[in-house]
Amino acid sequence: MRVLGVDPGLTRCGLGVVDGGTGRTVTCVAVDVVRTPVDASLEIRLLRLADAVEDWLERYRPEAVAVERVFSQHNVRTVMGTAQAGGVVALTAARRRLPVAFHTPSEVKAAVTGSGRADKAQVTGMVTRLLKLAEAPSPADAADALALAICHLWREPMRARLAEAEARAAELARTHRARLAAAARNATGNR
Amino acid sequence: MRVLGVDPGLTRCGLGVVDGGTGRTVTCVAVDVVRTPVDASLEIRLLRLADAVEDWLERYRPEAVAVERVFSQHNVRTVMGTAQAGGVVALTAARRRLPVAFHTPSEVKAAVTGSGRADKAQVTGMVTRLLKLAEAPSPADAADALALAICHLWREPMRARLAEAEARAAELARTHRARLAAAARNATGNR
Repeated sequence: MRVLGVDPGLTRCGLGVVDGGTGRTVTCVAVDVVRTPVDASLEIRLLRLADAVEDWLERYRPEAVAVERVFSQHNVRTVMGTAQAGGVVALTAARRRLPVAFHTPSEVKAAVTGSGRADKAQVTGMVTRLLKLAEAPSPADAADALALAICHLWREPMRARLAEAEARAAELARTHRARLAAAARNATGNR
Repeated sequence: MRVLGVDPGLTRCGLGVVDGGTGRTVTCVAVDVVRTPVDASLEIRLLRLADAVEDWLERYRPEAVAVERVFSQHNVRTVMGTAQAGGVVALTAARRRLPVAFHTPSEVKAAVTGSGRADKAQVTGMVTRLLKLAEAPSPADAADALALAICHLWREPMRARLAEAEARAAELARTHRARLAAAARNATGNR
Protein backbone atom coordinates (compact mmCIF):
# COMPACT_ATOMS: atom_id res chain seq x y z
CA MET A 1 0.00 0.00 0.00
CA ARG A 2 1.19 3.50 -0.87
CA VAL A 3 0.36 6.47 1.34
CA LEU A 4 0.85 10.21 0.93
CA GLY A 5 1.54 11.86 4.28
CA VAL A 6 0.82 15.58 4.54
CA ASP A 7 1.94 17.98 7.26
CA PRO A 8 -0.36 20.85 6.25
CA GLY A 9 0.72 24.46 6.23
CA LEU A 10 0.69 27.55 4.04
CA THR A 11 4.27 28.71 4.52
CA ARG A 12 5.65 25.15 4.42
CA CYS A 13 3.63 22.01 3.67
CA GLY A 14 5.46 18.70 4.07
CA LEU A 15 4.64 15.96 1.55
CA GLY A 16 5.97 12.40 1.83
CA VAL A 17 5.07 9.25 -0.10
CA VAL A 18 5.82 5.92 1.59
CA ASP A 19 5.27 2.36 0.40
CA GLY A 20 4.41 -0.27 2.99
CA GLY A 21 5.79 -3.76 2.42
CA THR A 22 5.32 -7.00 4.35
CA GLY A 23 5.45 -6.67 8.10
CA ARG A 24 6.71 -3.27 9.13
CA THR A 25 8.89 -2.65 6.08
CA VAL A 26 8.54 0.89 4.73
CA THR A 27 10.20 2.57 1.76
CA CYS A 28 10.44 6.26 0.94
CA VAL A 29 9.18 7.06 -2.56
CA ALA A 30 9.33 10.85 -2.48
CA VAL A 31 9.59 13.66 0.03
CA ASP A 32 9.51 17.43 -0.33
CA VAL A 33 8.20 20.65 1.11
CA VAL A 34 5.81 22.91 -0.80
CA ARG A 35 5.99 26.62 -0.02
CA THR A 36 3.43 29.24 -0.99
CA PRO A 37 4.31 32.96 -1.27
CA VAL A 38 3.83 34.74 2.09
CA ASP A 39 2.72 37.94 0.33
CA ALA A 40 0.02 36.24 -1.78
CA SER A 41 -3.64 36.34 -0.71
CA LEU A 42 -4.99 33.39 1.25
CA GLU A 43 -7.09 31.97 -1.59
CA ILE A 44 -4.12 32.07 -3.97
CA ARG A 45 -1.92 30.28 -1.40
CA LEU A 46 -4.61 27.62 -0.97
CA LEU A 47 -4.85 27.26 -4.75
CA ARG A 48 -1.08 26.79 -5.11
CA LEU A 49 -1.12 24.18 -2.36
CA ALA A 50 -4.08 22.32 -3.91
CA ASP A 51 -2.29 22.30 -7.28
CA ALA A 52 0.89 20.90 -5.71
CA VAL A 53 -1.03 18.12 -3.91
CA GLU A 54 -2.98 17.38 -7.09
CA ASP A 55 0.35 17.05 -8.93
CA TRP A 56 1.70 14.60 -6.31
CA LEU A 57 -1.50 12.50 -6.41
CA GLU A 58 -1.20 12.32 -10.18
CA ARG A 59 2.51 11.53 -10.16
CA TYR A 60 2.73 9.03 -7.28
CA ARG A 61 -0.80 7.56 -7.22
CA PRO A 62 -1.11 6.87 -3.47
CA GLU A 63 -4.03 4.71 -2.30
CA ALA A 64 -4.65 6.83 0.80
CA VAL A 65 -3.80 10.25 2.21
CA ALA A 66 -2.83 10.83 5.85
CA VAL A 67 -3.09 14.39 7.16
CA GLU A 68 -1.99 15.78 10.51
CA ARG A 69 -4.97 16.64 12.69
CA VAL A 70 -4.55 20.24 13.80
CA PHE A 71 -5.13 21.41 17.33
CA SER A 72 -5.84 24.96 18.34
CA GLN A 73 -3.10 25.19 20.93
CA HIS A 74 -0.56 27.62 19.49
CA ASN A 75 -0.84 30.87 17.57
CA VAL A 76 -4.49 31.23 16.51
CA ARG A 77 -3.70 32.75 13.13
CA THR A 78 -1.21 30.02 12.19
CA VAL A 79 -3.63 27.32 13.36
CA MET A 80 -6.42 28.70 11.18
CA GLY A 81 -4.14 28.74 8.13
CA THR A 82 -3.07 25.18 8.91
CA ALA A 83 -6.69 24.02 9.27
CA GLN A 84 -7.63 25.69 5.97
CA ALA A 85 -4.63 24.07 4.28
CA GLY A 86 -5.63 20.67 5.74
CA GLY A 87 -9.19 21.13 4.48
CA VAL A 88 -7.95 21.89 0.98
CA VAL A 89 -5.67 18.81 1.01
CA ALA A 90 -8.58 16.60 2.14
CA LEU A 91 -10.84 18.03 -0.58
CA THR A 92 -8.20 17.44 -3.26
CA ALA A 93 -7.92 13.79 -2.19
CA ALA A 94 -11.72 13.40 -1.98
CA ARG A 95 -12.06 14.68 -5.57
CA ARG A 96 -10.05 11.60 -6.56
CA ARG A 97 -12.13 9.36 -4.27
CA LEU A 98 -9.12 8.64 -2.09
CA PRO A 99 -9.68 7.86 1.61
CA VAL A 100 -8.33 10.53 3.95
CA ALA A 101 -7.29 9.84 7.54
CA PHE A 102 -6.39 12.41 10.17
CA HIS A 103 -3.81 11.47 12.79
CA THR A 104 -2.91 13.58 15.82
CA PRO A 105 0.75 14.57 16.38
CA SER A 106 0.93 12.29 19.43
CA GLU A 107 -0.47 9.31 17.48
CA VAL A 108 2.22 9.90 14.86
CA LYS A 109 5.00 10.22 17.43
CA ALA A 110 3.78 7.10 19.27
CA ALA A 111 3.59 5.06 16.05
CA VAL A 112 7.07 6.02 14.89
CA THR A 113 9.10 6.36 18.11
CA GLY A 114 7.02 4.43 20.65
CA SER A 115 6.37 7.59 22.67
CA GLY A 116 3.62 10.15 22.10
CA ARG A 117 5.85 12.78 23.72
CA ALA A 118 8.92 12.34 21.49
CA ASP A 119 10.52 15.57 20.27
CA LYS A 120 11.10 16.64 16.65
CA ALA A 121 14.70 15.32 16.63
CA GLN A 122 13.60 11.85 17.82
CA VAL A 123 10.88 11.68 15.15
CA THR A 124 13.30 12.75 12.41
CA GLY A 125 15.90 10.24 13.68
CA MET A 126 13.45 7.32 13.67
CA VAL A 127 12.04 8.26 10.24
CA THR A 128 15.58 8.39 8.82
CA ARG A 129 16.39 4.97 10.31
CA LEU A 130 13.08 3.27 9.41
CA LEU A 131 13.26 4.42 5.79
CA LYS A 132 17.06 3.76 5.63
CA LEU A 133 17.65 7.29 4.28
CA ALA A 134 21.23 8.43 3.60
CA GLU A 135 20.50 11.67 5.43
CA ALA A 136 17.80 13.11 7.68
CA PRO A 137 14.88 14.73 5.78
CA SER A 138 14.88 18.48 6.24
CA PRO A 139 13.07 20.69 7.20
CA ALA A 140 11.10 19.04 10.02
CA ASP A 141 7.87 19.33 7.97
CA ALA A 142 9.32 16.86 5.44
CA ALA A 143 10.19 14.36 8.19
CA ASP A 144 6.73 14.86 9.74
CA ALA A 145 5.03 14.08 6.42
CA LEU A 146 6.95 10.79 6.15
CA ALA A 147 6.15 9.99 9.81
CA LEU A 148 2.43 10.56 9.06
CA ALA A 149 2.55 8.16 6.13
CA ILE A 150 4.33 5.50 8.24
CA CYS A 151 1.84 6.03 11.09
CA HIS A 152 -1.02 5.49 8.67
CA LEU A 153 0.51 2.33 7.17
CA TRP A 154 0.95 0.82 10.64
CA ARG A 155 -2.25 2.04 12.28
CA GLU A 156 -4.67 1.53 9.39
CA PRO A 157 -4.84 -2.31 9.40
CA MET A 158 -5.44 -2.22 13.15
CA ARG A 159 -8.07 0.50 12.80
CA ALA A 160 -9.80 -1.44 10.02
CA ARG A 161 -9.82 -4.66 12.12
CA LEU A 162 -11.18 -2.72 15.09
CA ALA A 163 -13.95 -1.14 12.99
CA GLU A 164 -14.84 -4.59 11.63
CA ALA A 165 -14.95 -6.09 15.14
CA GLU A 166 -17.14 -3.20 16.35
CA ALA A 167 -19.53 -3.61 13.42
CA ARG A 168 -19.76 -7.35 14.15
CA ALA A 169 -20.44 -6.69 17.85
CA ALA A 170 -23.14 -4.14 16.97
CA GLU A 171 -24.74 -6.65 14.58
CA LEU A 172 -24.74 -9.36 17.28
CA ALA A 173 -26.29 -6.95 19.78
CA ARG A 174 -28.97 -6.04 17.23
CA THR A 175 -29.80 -9.72 16.58
CA HIS A 176 -29.92 -10.41 20.32
CA ARG A 177 -32.28 -7.49 20.97
CA ALA A 178 -34.52 -8.60 18.09
CA ARG A 179 -34.72 -12.14 19.55
CA LEU A 180 -35.52 -10.77 23.00
CA ALA A 181 -38.29 -8.60 21.51
CA ALA A 182 -39.68 -11.58 19.54
CA ALA A 183 -39.64 -13.74 22.70
CA ALA A 184 -41.46 -10.99 24.61
CA ARG A 185 -44.09 -10.72 21.85
CA ASN A 186 -44.60 -14.50 21.83
CA ALA A 187 -44.94 -14.54 25.62
CA THR A 188 -47.64 -11.82 25.39
CA GLY A 189 -49.37 -13.63 22.51
CA ASN A 190 -49.46 -16.89 24.49
CA ARG A 191 -50.92 -15.29 27.58
CA MET B 1 -21.55 44.40 -8.28
CA ARG B 2 -22.72 40.95 -7.20
CA VAL B 3 -21.27 39.26 -4.11
CA LEU B 4 -21.63 35.76 -2.67
CA GLY B 5 -21.47 35.84 1.12
CA VAL B 6 -20.56 32.61 2.88
CA ASP B 7 -20.95 31.77 6.56
CA PRO B 8 -18.77 28.65 6.48
CA GLY B 9 -19.64 25.46 8.34
CA LEU B 10 -19.93 21.72 7.83
CA THR B 11 -23.26 21.11 9.55
CA ARG B 12 -24.78 24.29 8.14
CA CYS B 13 -23.15 26.64 5.64
CA GLY B 14 -25.00 29.86 4.87
CA LEU B 15 -24.91 31.13 1.28
CA GLY B 16 -26.32 34.49 0.19
CA VAL B 17 -26.03 36.37 -3.10
CA VAL B 18 -26.55 40.15 -2.99
CA ASP B 19 -26.46 42.76 -5.76
CA GLY B 20 -25.19 46.22 -4.88
CA GLY B 21 -26.82 49.14 -6.67
CA THR B 22 -26.12 52.86 -6.56
CA GLY B 23 -25.40 54.31 -3.12
CA ARG B 24 -26.25 51.81 -0.42
CA THR B 25 -29.01 49.98 -2.31
CA VAL B 26 -28.78 46.19 -1.96
CA THR B 27 -30.97 43.45 -3.42
CA CYS B 28 -31.19 39.80 -2.40
CA VAL B 29 -30.69 37.43 -5.34
CA ALA B 30 -30.61 34.11 -3.50
CA VAL B 31 -30.18 32.74 -0.01
CA ASP B 32 -29.98 29.22 1.37
CA VAL B 33 -28.22 26.94 3.80
CA VAL B 34 -26.20 23.93 2.66
CA ARG B 35 -26.02 21.00 5.04
CA THR B 36 -23.59 18.08 4.85
CA PRO B 37 -24.31 14.69 6.48
CA VAL B 38 -23.02 14.61 10.07
CA ASP B 39 -22.15 10.92 9.77
CA ALA B 40 -20.06 11.31 6.59
CA SER B 41 -16.26 11.52 6.77
CA LEU B 42 -14.69 14.97 6.85
CA GLU B 43 -13.32 14.82 3.30
CA ILE B 44 -16.73 13.82 1.91
CA ARG B 45 -18.41 16.67 3.79
CA LEU B 46 -15.83 19.12 2.38
CA LEU B 47 -16.44 17.70 -1.09
CA ARG B 48 -20.22 18.15 -0.81
CA LEU B 49 -19.73 21.72 0.38
CA ALA B 50 -17.27 22.52 -2.45
CA ASP B 51 -19.74 21.11 -4.99
CA ALA B 52 -22.57 23.24 -3.59
CA VAL B 53 -20.45 26.42 -3.69
CA GLU B 54 -19.29 25.53 -7.21
CA ASP B 55 -22.93 25.17 -8.21
CA TRP B 56 -23.81 28.61 -6.77
CA LEU B 57 -20.83 30.28 -8.50
CA GLU B 58 -21.95 28.73 -11.78
CA ARG B 59 -25.59 29.65 -11.32
CA TYR B 60 -25.33 33.20 -9.90
CA ARG B 61 -21.93 34.34 -11.29
CA PRO B 62 -20.88 36.64 -8.44
CA GLU B 63 -17.88 38.94 -9.02
CA ALA B 64 -16.47 38.43 -5.51
CA VAL B 65 -16.83 36.05 -2.56
CA ALA B 66 -16.95 37.24 1.06
CA VAL B 67 -16.23 34.65 3.75
CA GLU B 68 -16.51 35.00 7.51
CA ARG B 69 -13.08 35.07 9.14
CA VAL B 70 -13.06 32.40 11.83
CA PHE B 71 -11.66 32.92 15.29
CA SER B 72 -10.63 30.19 17.62
CA GLN B 73 -12.77 31.29 20.54
CA HIS B 74 -15.41 28.61 20.91
CA ASN B 75 -15.35 24.82 20.69
CA VAL B 76 -12.00 23.84 19.17
CA ARG B 77 -13.39 21.01 17.10
CA THR B 78 -16.17 23.11 15.57
CA VAL B 79 -13.73 25.93 14.83
CA MET B 80 -11.39 23.55 12.99
CA GLY B 81 -14.27 22.26 10.86
CA THR B 82 -15.34 25.84 10.15
CA ALA B 83 -11.79 26.84 9.16
CA GLN B 84 -11.50 23.80 6.87
CA ALA B 85 -14.87 24.65 5.31
CA GLY B 86 -13.75 28.27 4.82
CA GLY B 87 -10.53 27.10 3.16
CA VAL B 88 -12.46 24.91 0.75
CA VAL B 89 -14.83 27.78 -0.12
CA ALA B 90 -11.86 30.11 -0.77
CA LEU B 91 -10.18 27.47 -2.95
CA THR B 92 -13.37 26.94 -4.99
CA ALA B 93 -13.59 30.68 -5.65
CA ALA B 94 -9.85 30.93 -6.46
CA ARG B 95 -10.24 28.15 -9.06
CA ARG B 96 -12.57 30.56 -10.89
CA ARG B 97 -10.16 33.48 -10.36
CA LEU B 98 -12.67 35.25 -8.14
CA PRO B 99 -11.37 37.59 -5.43
CA VAL B 100 -12.03 36.34 -1.89
CA ALA B 101 -12.29 38.64 1.12
CA PHE B 102 -12.47 37.60 4.76
CA HIS B 103 -14.47 39.76 7.14
CA THR B 104 -14.60 39.30 10.91
CA PRO B 105 -17.98 38.89 12.65
CA SER B 106 -17.62 42.32 14.27
CA GLU B 107 -16.82 43.99 10.92
CA VAL B 108 -19.99 42.42 9.51
CA LYS B 109 -22.12 43.47 12.48
CA ALA B 110 -20.71 47.01 12.38
CA ALA B 111 -21.32 47.34 8.64
CA VAL B 112 -24.92 46.14 8.83
CA THR B 113 -26.19 47.43 12.19
CA GLY B 114 -23.71 50.19 13.04
CA SER B 115 -22.46 48.27 16.10
CA GLY B 116 -19.77 45.58 16.19
CA ARG B 117 -21.47 44.09 19.25
CA ALA B 118 -24.95 43.64 17.78
CA ASP B 119 -26.61 40.30 18.54
CA LYS B 120 -27.92 37.74 16.03
CA ALA B 121 -31.50 39.10 16.19
CA GLN B 122 -30.36 42.65 15.41
CA VAL B 123 -28.28 41.46 12.45
CA THR B 124 -31.18 39.40 11.10
CA GLY B 125 -33.57 42.34 11.60
CA MET B 126 -31.33 44.79 9.73
CA VAL B 127 -30.64 42.31 6.91
CA THR B 128 -34.39 41.76 6.49
CA ARG B 129 -35.02 45.51 6.40
CA LEU B 130 -32.08 46.44 4.13
CA LEU B 131 -33.00 43.79 1.58
CA LYS B 132 -36.74 44.51 1.96
CA LEU B 133 -37.46 40.80 2.51
CA ALA B 134 -41.00 39.65 3.20
CA GLU B 135 -39.75 37.56 6.11
CA ALA B 136 -36.56 37.15 8.12
CA PRO B 137 -34.06 34.71 6.58
CA SER B 138 -33.77 31.57 8.67
CA PRO B 139 -31.66 29.93 10.11
CA ALA B 140 -29.23 32.57 11.40
CA ASP B 141 -26.51 31.21 9.05
CA ALA B 142 -28.59 32.34 6.06
CA ALA B 143 -28.97 35.86 7.49
CA ASP B 144 -25.23 35.93 8.31
CA ALA B 145 -24.34 35.03 4.72
CA LEU B 146 -26.45 37.94 3.42
CA ALA B 147 -24.91 40.27 6.04
CA LEU B 148 -21.42 39.21 4.85
CA ALA B 149 -22.28 40.03 1.25
CA ILE B 150 -23.69 43.45 2.25
CA CYS B 151 -20.64 44.14 4.42
CA HIS B 152 -18.40 43.34 1.48
CA LEU B 153 -20.38 45.58 -0.93
CA TRP B 154 -20.13 48.52 1.47
CA ARG B 155 -16.59 48.02 2.75
CA GLU B 156 -14.88 47.05 -0.50
CA PRO B 157 -14.95 50.47 -2.27
CA MET B 158 -13.52 52.05 0.90
CA ARG B 159 -10.88 49.36 1.21
CA ALA B 160 -9.93 49.75 -2.46
CA ARG B 161 -9.66 53.56 -2.09
CA LEU B 162 -7.54 53.13 1.03
CA ALA B 163 -5.21 50.67 -0.70
CA GLU B 164 -4.88 53.08 -3.63
CA ALA B 165 -4.09 56.01 -1.30
CA GLU B 166 -1.49 53.91 0.53
CA ALA B 167 0.13 52.86 -2.74
CA ARG B 168 0.26 56.50 -3.86
CA ALA B 169 1.80 57.57 -0.53
CA ALA B 170 4.41 54.80 -0.78
CA GLU B 171 5.25 55.90 -4.34
CA LEU B 172 5.63 59.55 -3.22
CA ALA B 173 7.89 58.48 -0.35
CA ARG B 174 10.01 56.43 -2.77
CA THR B 175 10.36 59.38 -5.18
CA HIS B 176 11.26 61.67 -2.28
CA ARG B 177 13.95 59.29 -0.99
CA ALA B 178 15.37 58.90 -4.51
CA ARG B 179 15.61 62.70 -4.89
CA LEU B 180 17.28 63.05 -1.49
CA ALA B 181 19.78 60.34 -2.45
CA ALA B 182 20.46 62.03 -5.80
CA ALA B 183 20.94 65.39 -4.05
CA ALA B 184 23.35 63.77 -1.59
CA ARG B 185 25.35 62.20 -4.45
CA ASN B 186 25.49 65.53 -6.27
CA ALA B 187 26.64 67.29 -3.10
CA THR B 188 29.43 64.68 -2.70
CA GLY B 189 30.38 64.93 -6.39
CA ASN B 190 30.55 68.73 -6.25
CA ARG B 191 32.76 68.79 -3.21
